[in-house]
Amino acid sequence: MGCAPCSFFHERCKENMIVVLKSGVKQEKKEQLIDWLRKQGLTIHVSEGEFHTVLGLIGDASAVDADLIGSLDIVDSVKRVTEPFRCCSRKFHPDDLVVEVGGVKIGGGHFAMIAGPCSVESEEQILAVARSVKASGADLLRGGAFKPRTSPYDFSGLHERGIELLQLARAETGLPIVSEIMSTVQLPLFEDVDVLQVGARSMQNYDLLRELGKLDKPILLKRGLANTLRELLMSAEYIMAAGNERVILCERGIRTFSDYTRNTLDLSAVPELHELSHLPVIVDPSHATGINRLVPPMALAAAACGADGLMIEVHNDPMKALCDGAQALRPEEYDALAKKVRAVRAAVHDL
Amino acid sequence: MGCAPCSFFHERCKENMIVVLKSGVKQEKKEQLIDWLRKQGLTIHVSEGEFHTVLGLIGDASAVDADLIGSLDIVDSVKRVTEPFRCCSRKFHPDDLVVEVGGVKIGGGHFAMIAGPCSVESEEQILAVARSVKASGADLLRGGAFKPRTSPYDFSGLHERGIELLQLARAETGLPIVSEIMSTVQLPLFEDVDVLQVGARSMQNYDLLRELGKLDKPILLKRGLANTLRELLMSAEYIMAAGNERVILCERGIRTFSDYTRNTLDLSAVPELHELSHLPVIVDPSHATGINRLVPPMALAAAACGADGLMIEVHNDPMKALCDGAQALRPEEYDALAKKVRAVRAAVHDL
Amino acid sequence: MGCAPCSFFHERCKENMIVVLKSGVKQEKKEQLIDWLRKQGLTIHVSEGEFHTVLGLIGDASAVDADLIGSLDIVDSVKRVTEPFRCCSRKFHPDDLVVEVGGVKIGGGHFAMIAGPCSVESEEQILAVARSVKASGADLLRGGAFKPRTSPYDFSGLHERGIELLQLARAETGLPIVSEIMSTVQLPLFEDVDVLQVGARSMQNYDLLRELGKLDKPILLKRGLANTLRELLMSAEYIMAAGNERVILCERGIRTFSDYTRNTLDLSAVPELHELSHLPVIVDPSHATGINRLVPPMALAAAACGADGLMIEVHNDPMKALCDGAQALRPEEYDALAKKVRAVRAAVHDL
Amino acid sequence: MGCAPCSFFHERCKENMIVVLKSGVKQEKKEQLIDWLRKQGLTIHVSEGEFHTVLGLIGDASAVDADLIGSLDIVDSVKRVTEPFRCCSRKFHPDDLVVEVGGVKIGGGHFAMIAGPCSVESEEQILAVARSVKASGADLLRGGAFKPRTSPYDFSGLHERGIELLQLARAETGLPIVSEIMSTVQLPLFEDVDVLQVGARSMQNYDLLRELGKLDKPILLKRGLANTLRELLMSAEYIMAAGNERVILCERGIRTFSDYTRNTLDLSAVPELHELSHLPVIVDPSHATGINRLVPPMALAAAACGADGLMIEVHNDPMKALCDGAQALRPEEYDALAKKVRAVRAAVHDL
Repeated sequence: MGCAPCSFFHERCKENMIVVLKSGVKQEKKEQLIDWLRKQGLTIHVSEGEFHTVLGLIGDASAVDADLIGSLDIVDSVKRVTEPFRCCSRKFHPDDLVVEVGGVKIGGGHFAMIAGPCSVESEEQILAVARSVKASGADLLRGGAFKPRTSPYDFSGLHERGIELLQLARAETGLPIVSEIMSTVQLPLFEDVDVLQVGARSMQNYDLLRELGKLDKPILLKRGLANTLRELLMSAEYIMAAGNERVILCERGIRTFSDYTRNTLDLSAVPELHELSHLPVIVDPSHATGINRLVPPMALAAAACGADGLMIEVHNDPMKALCDGAQALRPEEYDALAKKVRAVRAAVHDL
Repeated sequence: MGCAPCSFFHERCKENMIVVLKSGVKQEKKEQLIDWLRKQGLTIHVSEGEFHTVLGLIGDASAVDADLIGSLDIVDSVKRVTEPFRCCSRKFHPDDLVVEVGGVKIGGGHFAMIAGPCSVESEEQILAVARSVKASGADLLRGGAFKPRTSPYDFSGLHERGIELLQLARAETGLPIVSEIMSTVQLPLFEDVDVLQVGARSMQNYDLLRELGKLDKPILLKRGLANTLRELLMSAEYIMAAGNERVILCERGIRTFSDYTRNTLDLSAVPELHELSHLPVIVDPSHATGINRLVPPMALAAAACGADGLMIEVHNDPMKALCDGAQALRPEEYDALAKKVRAVRAAVHDL
Repeated sequence: MGCAPCSFFHERCKENMIVVLKSGVKQEKKEQLIDWLRKQGLTIHVSEGEFHTVLGLIGDASAVDADLIGSLDIVDSVKRVTEPFRCCSRKFHPDDLVVEVGGVKIGGGHFAMIAGPCSVESEEQILAVARSVKASGADLLRGGAFKPRTSPYDFSGLHERGIELLQLARAETGLPIVSEIMSTVQLPLFEDVDVLQVGARSMQNYDLLRELGKLDKPILLKRGLANTLRELLMSAEYIMAAGNERVILCERGIRTFSDYTRNTLDLSAVPELHELSHLPVIVDPSHATGINRLVPPMALAAAACGADGLMIEVHNDPMKALCDGAQALRPEEYDALAKKVRAVRAAVHDL
Repeated sequence: MGCAPCSFFHERCKENMIVVLKSGVKQEKKEQLIDWLRKQGLTIHVSEGEFHTVLGLIGDASAVDADLIGSLDIVDSVKRVTEPFRCCSRKFHPDDLVVEVGGVKIGGGHFAMIAGPCSVESEEQILAVARSVKASGADLLRGGAFKPRTSPYDFSGLHERGIELLQLARAETGLPIVSEIMSTVQLPLFEDVDVLQVGARSMQNYDLLRELGKLDKPILLKRGLANTLRELLMSAEYIMAAGNERVILCERGIRTFSDYTRNTLDLSAVPELHELSHLPVIVDPSHATGINRLVPPMALAAAACGADGLMIEVHNDPMKALCDGAQALRPEEYDALAKKVRAVRAAVHDL
């Protein structure tokens, strides 16, 4: 299983690890370790320095626990040389992945605007917002039917009814729909949703990721609040290793000491993820900042630094929003922003 | 539903919120907002200051979105006065909760030592470790059958067989067993596990929490890497509001810029959680530091600052550990530590 | 002293504070606290809620320690309503500040490109870089003569000679010069430097800030690695309260758990600082990322979200760089970037 | 110059660095880099792996910029093998340093209690507190004469008069005194202060550190809010390399996302610093937590994990405290804590 282009690597993927021994280590202990490593099926290159001995491990080092080796008395430090991601790695997939869904393309020069309310609240609301963002040129419609809420007492979405309303809005506007799935139990309800979103809190819900890997539809994977880029890519790897290559990464802010915005939007993740992986990278400035007046400047910044798309909350009546209203744009604000985004992209790409 | 002692509060729980208006706000806009708030069923106290108007909201403010109000032009800031947790709140439950399982008590002055390997690897291994920690006075046996791993290619536990081996070790030593559950799908396999652990990555897996709330067994809830104490308590609230009051909180390190240890053990969370909640609080110094030589000092520190228990990784052969070996103690190290922990507790509590 | 426009406020600046008392507080204790607060010269508005009493403090609350009050048994929480900055506050200075130096304007729609090497290394080097960035349209020349280094054994700059070489480069190109000052002892050497930079490590070196407040030249104040926007503004306030209003703020990355870049560039600080203050805000993508291939995308992002300028490291021979070479652009890379920055600004501002 | 025991190392200190080249690098480029490195005076060991080439650099690599090398096209990663600190390194100083001042010893098994008010406020106050902490067995008296304050409008201490009052308290109680110095300009005023404290905000004020390195008195160096242990040790190195070996390190909390306490006390820093360095390590639980009810549990935790001392704020009248009153203990609270600290230390050390 796994993505075709790198199945070859799956079988014989070699990882290199470098183990630096402490100075003054006895020859006997050194040999013990080298013996043990060889028994794990690795080839060991020994390099004697003036103060340290360095071991280069060649072969499939994934069976060896780097932390364990690092904790041995005689070891100074351990360093993995090869990144552990394969399916999502730029190294093995030099060309950008273009994800297609309902006629819309994302990645590889194709930019997608995903817009809609935080939660689907009513037929009237979702249709009004869908029509308005469609008129402003949006490519996909977003809307939450299942909402992860910190408190068990807060509104958690319209559930099944929410998905039906999204489908209604799709029927009317033609926009493919994106909605968040929180549990494998919900899978049957999402059969006719175009793009399944994995929220920040679920980024390391591995059972969910594995099941999504069996589907034939794009997965929009959001970075967790305290997750590194490597961890985000490893979560993409879970989906891709299970057979579904169509993963879209999404930066949506990380948790830091900074207290003016809800989270700190880490825009340098965009070019960095493009360096590490061939997957498309989009940005969600609404959840990252939590403040609607910060959404337009951060959306423009994301477009300027190479994002492949934006995910933006739009609401037709902020005073009635049941959830996250503080960060949603009004339709006319979204329209003005969409125009500027296009202008910035044209400036950056000399279009 | 929900815990009996606070069901009264559930029905009529009132939340107070304070809304500070900007200086120079027009009377008309002010009245519009007050009208709208009153329509949500709230009583509003208006306090006119020299520069600001302050609104005190009385009644069930949980239907009102604080973020939305905070985003309005005329509002300077919003502050919730009442914490949104109820079932787990010290305010409504002044006495410490004592969790009992298999004859062992945790909380309210009862201290529990939970020890065992990171992963269950073999019958030989789990029996050897179980006997050794039992001999050192451990109260519960821990061991992972399902292991959350960042990489899909890493060892993820023996699954069903791991749980059978834990039960075997319990049969022989009499120690109740603790193991991590990652998905509602696994629930049938955990029927005969004494304490179900929710790992840091699953702390906000709300579907899982809700299902665990329907069980009649203690839940050991670990704090997420980037979660505040309030969020940890809200996750406990999910379990408790569904009917299961027996929740044990666990501090296991948070993610910070500090790079010498895997995570930063936030020990001040122990007295702070005791202030906010009546639930027992234990500490896992093994996962927090990721370095075995740091486990004993941090375990002693946890005991000194009032933890109700410790969760410590013990392994009989670190060189063969398949996972996290770097942070496990050898049986003799664990034995020495357990003695010191008792001495520190005696010193702190004048026992 | 202090900036003229807000001297009126200095004298009678009133701060409001809100004190929420715990539920069930005895009337006697409540009155004791209110009495004590009134003795500090404050007017107290008492608002009795259903569960809490709220005190509104009116008058000069700066003499009252919010933390102390918050620690009292009967107090639930304390909230300052008024931000403590005045001279740098947008509230009192609605119009953008335009800082002028040597014919260059920064802020209020004027965008400045500050470019040059991390350290001044030789006459040849600084002249070559200065000529090249001048040719690419840079407005100011930067170069370190005194370099803060984590290790006492690392190169710390050419000191006095470095400043002479900067002056030489200014004489030849006409570019005003910017250089970092680390101590009041160095002030005489900086008499003929156009803009004095306060580095991230010195952001809270209050003695230095106060002395810079006595000068008649612009101060470029960098945000500290772990400082909030409020703290950055309070440091600007130190300079401005001492009489020097010409402060330029600089976002240069904060310290987070994220480990791919040296720091995490917090671009949402740009629009947020513009909301809070009238001071110009520039961005340093070179130090923030520490990786030269990330400098262009982050520079474009900064321009797109409203920065008033950029500070970019340029070097004519990266292999010979003594310091921070990894993040410097080559002259031709800088030239291409400068062109794109202008295009992005034109797109955003409909120029 | 520098500490005598390691002057030998100063002259010939060798650093090893490991450079991993990318796979598929051309032989020609590889040789260019090796040539350049050899010209810097280094010996290079080349180790050819299956996928990567690894260069081991032997010799004085401190002249080589690891970041620059890491930024080269052909380089995958760079790793320093040798820590850059020497004077403060445990490697070169296996025995604990015992700092002596006025008959008090700190480190190497000697535990010191440093207590006193945040700020010196009046003769009456400092004498009362000094007598009371002396009676409770404190070893040193602390008190701020110069207080770093985020706001220029806040009380910043009694300055010269504050130091005179500390000296008066010392004359009466015999307790050596500790006070914070913020600038080299203040040095003359501190001539008769026993221990000079460098605050968290000044940890990287290198000019100050260098001047303190010329003194013959102990320096208490606090960790900065966002500084790694390595950076703390490098700041100690600045002082020690200038000739003053008597440095005491102090953990006082780091800045994280966690919002219940002012900072997050990173107690694992205590055993980790003891591993890396021979310098004494004390803990300041008052500033770390900012909440007085958290001071006793965290003080006990610090004693349990091996701290060489504690620095605790004590105040005789919290309601009148001008600064940080929220975190100060009353004398009777301090007395009770001091007794428990002794009991915990006895339990840990089998005294």
